[in-house]
Amino acid sequence: MDFLTELAATLLTQFQKPTLAFLIGGMLLAAFGSKLEVPEPVYKFVVMLLLLKVGLGAGMSVREADVVALAVPAFFAAVLGVVIVLVGGRTLTLWSGVSRMDGMATAGLFGAVSASTLAAGMATLDAEGVAYEGFIGALYPFMDIAALVTAIALARMSAQRGLAAVSSGGAATMTMGSGSASGVDGDVVRTILTDTFRSPAISALVIGLAIGVFARPDAVFESFYQPMFHGLLSILMLIMGMEAWARLSELKKVAHAYILYAVTAPILHGLMGLGLGVVAHHMTGFSAGGVTLLAIMAASSSDISGPPTLRAALPEANPSAYVGASTGLGTPVAILSIPLFMALSDWLIGF
Amino acid sequence: MDFLTELAATLLTQFQKPTLAFLIGGMLLAAFGSKLEVPEPVYKFVVMLLLLKVGLGAGMSVREADVVALAVPAFFAAVLGVVIVLVGGRTLTLWSGVSRMDGMATAGLFGAVSASTLAAGMATLDAEGVAYEGFIGALYPFMDIAALVTAIALARMSAQRGLAAVSSGGAATMTMGSGSASGVDGDVVRTILTDTFRSPAISALVIGLAIGVFARPDAVFESFYQPMFHGLLSILMLIMGMEAWARLSELKKVAHAYILYAVTAPILHGLMGLGLGVVAHHMTGFSAGGVTLLAIMAASSSDISGPPTLRAALPEANPSAYVGASTGLGTPVAILSIPLFMALSDWLIGF
Amino acid sequence: MDFLTELAATLLTQFQKPTLAFLIGGMLLAAFGSKLEVPEPVYKFVVMLLLLKVGLGAGMSVREADVVALAVPAFFAAVLGVVIVLVGGRTLTLWSGVSRMDGMATAGLFGAVSASTLAAGMATLDAEGVAYEGFIGALYPFMDIAALVTAIALARMSAQRGLAAVSSGGAATMTMGSGSASGVDGDVVRTILTDTFRSPAISALVIGLAIGVFARPDAVFESFYQPMFHGLLSILMLIMGMEAWARLSELKKVAHAYILYAVTAPILHGLMGLGLGVVAHHMTGFSAGGVTLLAIMAASSSDISGPPTLRAALPEANPSAYVGASTGLGTPVAILSIPLFMALSDWLIGF
Repeated sequence: MDFLTELAATLLTQFQKPTLAFLIGGMLLAAFGSKLEVPEPVYKFVVMLLLLKVGLGAGMSVREADVVALAVPAFFAAVLGVVIVLVGGRTLTLWSGVSRMDGMATAGLFGAVSASTLAAGMATLDAEGVAYEGFIGALYPFMDIAALVTAIALARMSAQRGLAAVSSGGAATMTMGSGSASGVDGDVVRTILTDTFRSPAISALVIGLAIGVFARPDAVFESFYQPMFHGLLSILMLIMGMEAWARLSELKKVAHAYILYAVTAPILHGLMGLGLGVVAHHMTGFSAGGVTLLAIMAASSSDISGPPTLRAALPEANPSAYVGASTGLGTPVAILSIPLFMALSDWLIGF
Repeated sequence: MDFLTELAATLLTQFQKPTLAFLIGGMLLAAFGSKLEVPEPVYKFVVMLLLLKVGLGAGMSVREADVVALAVPAFFAAVLGVVIVLVGGRTLTLWSGVSRMDGMATAGLFGAVSASTLAAGMATLDAEGVAYEGFIGALYPFMDIAALVTAIALARMSAQRGLAAVSSGGAATMTMGSGSASGVDGDVVRTILTDTFRSPAISALVIGLAIGVFARPDAVFESFYQPMFHGLLSILMLIMGMEAWARLSELKKVAHAYILYAVTAPILHGLMGLGLGVVAHHMTGFSAGGVTLLAIMAASSSDISGPPTLRAALPEANPSAYVGASTGLGTPVAILSIPLFMALSDWLIGF
Repeated sequence: MDFLTELAATLLTQFQKPTLAFLIGGMLLAAFGSKLEVPEPVYKFVVMLLLLKVGLGAGMSVREADVVALAVPAFFAAVLGVVIVLVGGRTLTLWSGVSRMDGMATAGLFGAVSASTLAAGMATLDAEGVAYEGFIGALYPFMDIAALVTAIALARMSAQRGLAAVSSGGAATMTMGSGSASGVDGDVVRTILTDTFRSPAISALVIGLAIGVFARPDAVFESFYQPMFHGLLSILMLIMGMEAWARLSELKKVAHAYILYAVTAPILHGLMGLGLGVVAHHMTGFSAGGVTLLAIMAASSSDISGPPTLRAALPEANPSAYVGASTGLGTPVAILSIPLFMALSDWLIGF
């Protein structure tokens, strides 16, 4: 009971924190029909700066990091990405009205990572003075890429199987169907990997990571990227809030399954992340702050890098379904549950 | 005589202050035909950041403000907005060649508030180390909305009356004319209020205000919004200067009445603001810095939120007239007279 | 031998400096086919802020500068601009396959100055704690304008001479040819000067310079322009790297002469700048840091203000040749040779 009271108090204070306040502010603006908008080029630039900052910070920490301390959470991050997609894809397609393609695309986005949610988590921990491993940003691509590759490969394979079944019935064009099906493991995976690394979000993160590891950007990081971080994040939260509200209406057009999934999945994925994080804590001394951020990463769903990759790889899937579920509900639910994962990590391990 | 010498010296030093220097710099650039331009998306973002900053700062102060200390200046701000429009609309339409619609639209803009002029005033007071009430930014919407609603409602009513007169002559469609005329008080006012609150400028200001009052954005305010303020304002002044010069040529196409009005009105409105500010000073101890800013707000004419609202509400009015008068002359005159209002406040009350 | 080892060590450390690291990072991104891009409006704004900063800083220093100390390097800067164009134009047109027009345009760009290369040089010296004259930024227009005017005037004159030769053969329209030829000195030069001063880059620099000299922008310079400088430069370097890589492919379409010129000219021009800088050092005590920056300015080739001016003035010239050579090879070679000029200045004069 005492724990619940404390949890409620923590949640209440968290909603007053800039990060959540700006997110809710953005939602209110959109709900009221405000014409305020952050121009697209500025939005792209703000995201790029945030990702460079996360990458640079992670790179600078990786330089000094213990290989084992980094390898265990990185492996768990990849495992989370794969498992979330497998479970999510299977669960969503149980519902009638959800096509296998749409289900896999949605599960792929929920397995992938949201840079803004991760940044919001970092900012919240910073504000509380909770320490975490500097290399956390380096875990992002492991989870993100594992999830997107799994989702796209599975969706492609099931599409081929469907095609093959149809073909064997008609006894024609058999070769083409099976040919592509066997090609899934090689070419398709390579294409997805290349597309993902070339996407603006992962590119910015990885180049930041590389500069952080191989160069000495410490001065410009301290004088520019670090001080700009919280301010730009507040702007991004305002945008996310407006965007989430706008996407909600799209969700109403598709099956209710997506709404149920988008509200519950972030919490469940976060708890899975929390569980594996606690295992990493006992294996390599992964910090409570790190566990919180692994949970937040698992809870988050991709809003920047994921959608264009999916649109290119799975053109048959319906963006209203997967983008609506992810941006309209998944992201705000994940951001709003940051205080929950903080409270749980503190309770389980202690900051 | 001694006062005049001092005034001249103050004016001279003020023109060297960054705010005015960048404004004049922008005018010189435009006069010389420079191709330098600040891209539209960046301009919108700079304005949004400035308004969020003013709103956040005001909101954080309102939290601790005395209700009476805030209510008196807020009431006077609204009164100024209404009176400026009533006097201005009447004066302008005395001239031949000025239609009632154009006159009301112009008076509406001169009654509304310019975020950049207000920000320039704050920056100038900051640079001089003059204190003012933190809640000043919260007065903005009172004056701005009062002026726009008055102008649009009066213009609409007079248009209806004109229509009614024509109709009664022809003895037809009488009902429609009177029907709309009676609707002015209800629907029209509600539409104007909604449009004004939804406009990007007022939205940004009000959401900043709300976050400032209900959340705890102090950390991000100190680390980002506050330090960026003067820098972004210098950019905005450069833009305003270029814009003012470009608009001047449009003014030449319309009646000379606008030029005379645009040059004298800001000074007269500022003196009216100064007068009511001094009354507030004696009633609630409103500071000399606050009086200066109330005068500057009254002197300013809307350049961001006003024009689109007017264009939507009064499509018959000529934008070359009202935007030309406001942006081309009104805003630079108001900004350049900031030192005057400072000197007068200092003289009347003392900083 | 000892000097060479030291030089190699210095070069190696320099590549780890943020400036060069971000440049190389941008090249890697482009080479890998990344879809990361900095939106055009943001790019323009970043360049404008950097040029305002360089101009403001220079202006504030000019206020206190000794006229002679400024005049000698300024004169040398103009001489360098003229000589680089004369030598370059002559050298390039020796090759077959290089038209006189294309050769002069390319030499003009290599004589003009790159704001980003100069900014990169300043940032590198700042990071090393090497002092230099604050007025260095004021030398920029002397070299830039001298080079562009020389290149365009010579190209125009030789085009007229060609036309005159053709005309005298045909014995017709003689008057027009000679009429325009004699007009080169007057009207053409005035047009080029006006165009150059109106270009966004020179405008931003000159207005910054003017505000720095005549106003007191010190507070906003310290609180905004100075702290943003290194961060925005890192973004600009990322863009330059990506742009350079993209332009390289254009270079392959034109004569190989451009590739050879673009790789060697920056080094040779830098050495010429270094030589005149050392002369200025002995005449007026021009600092070793100033000598380094004069060399970097001479080594740099214009990437922002030059190309549009040339495109307008010499529409017959092939942009793939001059922009490809300058942005694709000249700028990265110049930026990458910053450590070389630093080491040489230190060796010749001593920081």
